[in-house]
Amino acid sequence: MRYLRGTWMRGGTSKCWLFDAEDLAGGDPGEVLAAAFGAGDPRQIDGVGGATSTTSKAALVRRSGAPGIDVDYRFAQVGIGARRVEWGSNCGNCATAIGLYALLTGLIEPERDRTTVRMRNTNTGTLLAAGIATPGGVVPETGTAVVPGAGDGGVPVELAFLDPSGSTTGVLSPTGRPLDRLPVPATLVDAGAPAALIDADAAGDLTVDELIALRRKAAVVMGLSGADDAIPKTGLVGRPRDPGHDLHVRMVSMLAPHPAVGLTSAVAITAAAGVEGSVVHRALGGRVPGVLRLGTPAGVVTVRAEWDSGGRLRAVRLDRAARRIAVAEISVPLTEDVALAS
Amino acid sequence: MRYLRGTWMRGGTSKCWLFDAEDLAGGDPGEVLAAAFGAGDPRQIDGVGGATSTTSKAALVRRSGAPGIDVDYRFAQVGIGARRVEWGSNCGNCATAIGLYALLTGLIEPERDRTTVRMRNTNTGTLLAAGIATPGGVVPETGTAVVPGAGDGGVPVELAFLDPSGSTTGVLSPTGRPLDRLPVPATLVDAGAPAALIDADAAGDLTVDELIALRRKAAVVMGLSGADDAIPKTGLVGRPRDPGHDLHVRMVSMLAPHPAVGLTSAVAITAAAGVEGSVVHRALGGRVPGVLRLGTPAGVVTVRAEWDSGGRLRAVRLDRAARRIAVAEISVPLTEDVALAS
Repeated sequence: MRYLRGTWMRGGTSKCWLFDAEDLAGGDPGEVLAAAFGAGDPRQIDGVGGATSTTSKAALVRRSGAPGIDVDYRFAQVGIGARRVEWGSNCGNCATAIGLYALLTGLIEPERDRTTVRMRNTNTGTLLAAGIATPGGVVPETGTAVVPGAGDGGVPVELAFLDPSGSTTGVLSPTGRPLDRLPVPATLVDAGAPAALIDADAAGDLTVDELIALRRKAAVVMGLSGADDAIPKTGLVGRPRDPGHDLHVRMVSMLAPHPAVGLTSAVAITAAAGVEGSVVHRALGGRVPGVLRLGTPAGVVTVRAEWDSGGRLRAVRLDRAARRIAVAEISVPLTEDVALAS
Repeated sequence: MRYLRGTWMRGGTSKCWLFDAEDLAGGDPGEVLAAAFGAGDPRQIDGVGGATSTTSKAALVRRSGAPGIDVDYRFAQVGIGARRVEWGSNCGNCATAIGLYALLTGLIEPERDRTTVRMRNTNTGTLLAAGIATPGGVVPETGTAVVPGAGDGGVPVELAFLDPSGSTTGVLSPTGRPLDRLPVPATLVDAGAPAALIDADAAGDLTVDELIALRRKAAVVMGLSGADDAIPKTGLVGRPRDPGHDLHVRMVSMLAPHPAVGLTSAVAITAAAGVEGSVVHRALGGRVPGVLRLGTPAGVVTVRAEWDSGGRLRAVRLDRAARRIAVAEISVPLTEDVALAS
């Protein structure tokens, strides 16, 4: 039996297990995480996983050696009914949690009034910043900030995705086109995460299965392997169906409907607003907004976008919440300890 | 913020959080558990709960002061989307975990070869025993025993329900009849837990909603309050649909289909086999078996029954598995600390 110390955090609408990257060095961290989560079982009944896309997440966190960056983290989407881990994507909700975690664990020192934790997601190279009020240099353990899709309060965290375009493939539009036909019209962008944004007004209310089929097509067109269930983020985006929304958004996540919207998907949607002729640009009537209210199944997710004079997206900011749920020593049932030898 | 030390165990097909009862004394333990689990949210996203009936369970455990009993435990079925806890029932899978927990935490000392942990469920008064191999007086942390509905291995635990009839209401047949009409024919028994066993051969494949409606009727007829979603255990029992089964069993649990069968339900079904004219007795063709193979959605659950010469059920034994998943310090977000004052 191997023992692994972990911190269980809620970030936005997700639960994430955070680990000191050093504790998983010298072996295959995916194997250890899959065993710790009970990933082989669709109910993850023999481990710490929650058996849904938003509760089967982990990250390995360490102090960064890079200038201007406080923390490096590697995100893991842990399998559900498959003893494996996907390393191809980032997770904004986990990043929210990591900001607070870095302060709670002393990885970085709090400032007098407000502390910004500068993070690098090593899966994608994305830079992020988490801003947390630390009045008197005290790190809050709890708070009353809520986000759509999670009714309980948490510590308010302002999460920023910095210069998010081309985070995985290097370019905002991997196909070079604002609109692709799958044949359903879709905009394929890479910002925050690779995403396939399908025209909800043209396609109608597609089923999850239809969206999953389109996801596979989009992966091929975007030059992704298609082996990673987490990307491209895929869903329907269209004109608002409620006066309080700017866009109608219905995403799938790990082959199931997302209860709200993944934050990397929110970034991709925001970036696509700046692409003339894209699904998002058209749904917004050509407007490139500074504030974007996404209508999700859980309610409105509000995004603040910062564009430079050349129309490039410099930052996407979201008001999120995080809370530490538990600190734990996990018993990891590894069949062969030899798997841990480097 | 209140900190609560807990041990997360897998018992059979359930995950249970186990606590030292002393750590929850002097207040309303239901309030603390509901907050720790994030019970108010249907996804339990802000707590340690798993948002399903089999992963939203806890027990308060203490050394017993009663003669012949090692451990007392109080089982809590924690709400999912409701900030409350139900204290009306017992859980065999948690009892399996508590047997191993009592040894791992030193609540009781292991014997040289095999240790029996004698337990009392204080919700119902049911006595149980967990038999665990402890070769050389060593308590195993892991093992290869599997149960239907959980593919991962665990420490083998033989769980016995002792003299289970009338555990909640005092009598095996609360209505005094082997068969009640709801109007669908059903046998209402109390052994392990109060249960409404509906004739699958007469009723056909009822939907979950239909079963839930019958559950409410059965609660009234059995003199239960009906306020507790956990009892009566309700489901369909009929003639086998597979040559390897003795009975066809489809139960609901906390208003959703059970992935296998709750162990208290298995005990109720076994006890009903001894009631002439009951749904179970008829489905078995009048045979009162020593071994009963229940055909559940997850596979065969095998039950060993011990009857005395008067036809009374003395014990029901099941081969189960358990494993410690983690030891944790949980951050419990209680709005008002005053709620903790006794």
